Amino acid sequence: MRMVDLIATKRDGGELPTADIKAMVEGFTNGDVPDYQMSAMSMAIFYQGMSDREIADLTMAMVESGDVIDLSRIHGKKVDKHSTGGVGDKISLIVAPLVASIGIPVAKMSGRGLGHTGGTIDKLEAFPGFDVELSEEAFVNQVNDIKMAIIGQTGNLTPADKKLYALRDVTATVNSIPLIASSIMSKKIAAGADSIVLDVKTGSGAFMKSFEDAKALATEMVSIGKSVNRKTIAVITDMDQPLGNEIGNANEVKEAIEVLQGKDVRDLKVIALTIASHMAVLGEFYPTFDEAYADLETRLANGAALDVFKKFIAAQGGDASLVDDMSKALETKYQKDFVASKAGYVSEIIADEVGVAAMILGAGRATKTDVIDHAASVTLLKKVGDRVEVGDVIATLRSNKETLDQAIEKMDHAYHISETKPEARPLVHAVID
Amino acid sequence: MRMVDLIATKRDGGELPTADIKAMVEGFTNGDVPDYQMSAMSMAIFYQGMSDREIADLTMAMVESGDVIDLSRIHGKKVDKHSTGGVGDKISLIVAPLVASIGIPVAKMSGRGLGHTGGTIDKLEAFPGFDVELSEEAFVNQVNDIKMAIIGQTGNLTPADKKLYALRDVTATVNSIPLIASSIMSKKIAAGADSIVLDVKTGSGAFMKSFEDAKALATEMVSIGKSVNRKTIAVITDMDQPLGNEIGNANEVKEAIEVLQGKDVRDLKVIALTIASHMAVLGEFYPTFDEAYADLETRLANGAALDVFKKFIAAQGGDASLVDDMSKALETKYQKDFVASKAGYVSEIIADEVGVAAMILGAGRATKTDVIDHAASVTLLKKVGDRVEVGDVIATLRSNKETLDQAIEKMDHAYHISETKPEARPLVHAVID
Repeated sequence: MRMVDLIATKRDGGELPTADIKAMVEGFTNGDVPDYQMSAMSMAIFYQGMSDREIADLTMAMVESGDVIDLSRIHGKKVDKHSTGGVGDKISLIVAPLVASIGIPVAKMSGRGLGHTGGTIDKLEAFPGFDVELSEEAFVNQVNDIKMAIIGQTGNLTPADKKLYALRDVTATVNSIPLIASSIMSKKIAAGADSIVLDVKTGSGAFMKSFEDAKALATEMVSIGKSVNRKTIAVITDMDQPLGNEIGNANEVKEAIEVLQGKDVRDLKVIALTIASHMAVLGEFYPTFDEAYADLETRLANGAALDVFKKFIAAQGGDASLVDDMSKALETKYQKDFVASKAGYVSEIIADEVGVAAMILGAGRATKTDVIDHAASVTLLKKVGDRVEVGDVIATLRSNKETLDQAIEKMDHAYHISETKPEARPLVHAVID
Repeated sequence: MRMVDLIATKRDGGELPTADIKAMVEGFTNGDVPDYQMSAMSMAIFYQGMSDREIADLTMAMVESGDVIDLSRIHGKKVDKHSTGGVGDKISLIVAPLVASIGIPVAKMSGRGLGHTGGTIDKLEAFPGFDVELSEEAFVNQVNDIKMAIIGQTGNLTPADKKLYALRDVTATVNSIPLIASSIMSKKIAAGADSIVLDVKTGSGAFMKSFEDAKALATEMVSIGKSVNRKTIAVITDMDQPLGNEIGNANEVKEAIEVLQGKDVRDLKVIALTIASHMAVLGEFYPTFDEAYADLETRLANGAALDVFKKFIAAQGGDASLVDDMSKALETKYQKDFVASKAGYVSEIIADEVGVAAMILGAGRATKTDVIDHAASVTLLKKVGDRVEVGDVIATLRSNKETLDQAIEKMDHAYHISETKPEARPLVHAVID
């Protein structure tokens, strides 16, 4: 079928046949289908949606557009984890060693950050010497040895998705659940996952602001997983304020380590244990979620997960001595407190604004070529529901740039203080499986 | 504003500011706005529509994207006429000399045909020697002398529209009333019209199949005319079967001449007089439509319009002797009758199929580079409502190619014969002003 007829079919609410979706994605990848047709198609999809079958076809067509990582030489079920992203999200750094500690192989590819949310790879590079580019053999061997490796994206994975995402970004078609769901799932499948646990964020700091949208995205991704024989569970978690108290890179690693040392940073601990428990059940290490949760909690308390983390940092060439004392990695030239100018309760922390403040300090990239300062950081001393008095320090900002005042201004936009204590939001809103 | 933000605004049903529409069209014309953004915008417009103000802004932005014909040296009000196109539509060939005969200057640019509908320029080239490429001076002088000239499109008119139309054609965004209306109106305004009478066709042979769609398009174009100070009237006329009895080129000219000689080919005469009368009222030659209609009818009867037509053909170098006897221009090698295989009433003639039959005979172009055979023709002897008996000749086909059987097959698809006489459809469905 001609592409213009496919566009017309979708435009009028029709379903695209499997073979046509495959041909369209192939054509788009090799340039036979021009951008202007794919953008019109994306806009038609934005309005008309896609059936579960179409979304699964699109996902697999994107998987097949490039390399697929072969993890068959890694022993055991490969359970991957993906987060839709948010400010202060260092959950992967806790979950990965935690599930690896019970024997689940974590062979993870992770991205770099752009804009106001950070990437796991950037955070790990806070360890001097840490190598994010392992050969396939080294990667596989490390996972077989110590059950855990995290590297940057390698190979030519899902080129169709890369090209389509870039096009959607400039044609106002990013915000389409079928397109988001297939984009995420194609990357996870191409990276070799047998099973997938999705951490879908919701709230003011999430891409999906409303619970309904988050649920729709989660449901769609779980449906794709079912269609393509990858067991998939989605956990909808709260991102109405930043996660934990640290936003940056080295300081986020430090906070993750503290949780691995047994510290009860409530939101981080609950969400990490929830994600890890679902991974452990999918990996068939426990019969039930509750058993997984209880046992994994002890592994935080007894240092088992922390041991894996140390081995992992050392195996990839990082300075593992920092794990016991991150203070060296946190030193900056400048530091300034953000202080309360009125009394009351913290009623809202706009996560995106905090993320931008951290970026201004040097912790993130405004453009792809920016260099990250791993020590630049925002530390939140007050979170939603906390009482503040005039003069209380709400947050401490650290930077090697003279941009503290500019970042403080963003913090001022981020924090809302009210007279009444706000109702607490749940940390885990729902589980979709 | 950035183009991606404009697309998002329209995508969500918002209105685009005047300055942004102008910048978008300018950017698209000079290549700063890439096709893939404009196609996403077109698809968003397909779903969300545009306000009257936005459509008028888009129209004028397209007018300003290229040359605007200056007809100020032509005396009198320039009233242009446009048809949305159909099979057997030779109305312009009757209307132009008719209104010119009362002194309305007809300075008309016309197109060539592509596909199953013909172009006025192609039909006029049935006169050997007829020149469709006059210099601007010759064009203006001829209109001042004999009140009528018809030439092919000249200059760089509405390049934004040309580029956008080509893009819409391959991205399934042709069928959008705001985009169709602004495309038509921008071309008429750039061609220098003071006032415009639109012949909007409806029925199975029209682009707008339903009366509702035709009315919506007509209403939108009249609204644009009002917004940009061009008096505009739209007449919604019937195109449920071909217009008149002749489909081709030289034979369509012959039929138009017969009407100019006073012959009562009902549909052609009524629609031509209706369009011409509205033009004459807009040109301020008569106070009312009825007075215009009555006087113009006498000008068909007394040969006044025919005289103008002869002068016009001669002025542009055509062999005007043919006007009195077109038979020479109608000669073909082959001829074949399409004969009724069952008795009954003609209940339907699918105009598009008849158009395709004529194209197969050589009267039209399948691709832009095809050469037209002006003698190739279809002559309908039976129209909707006529009684036929087995063996009656329904139509005669003439060609210089051996494609008659193939064309007869199309005619067989076109004609439906039923036992009961169908209800007559009106020739003029509505007038929008």
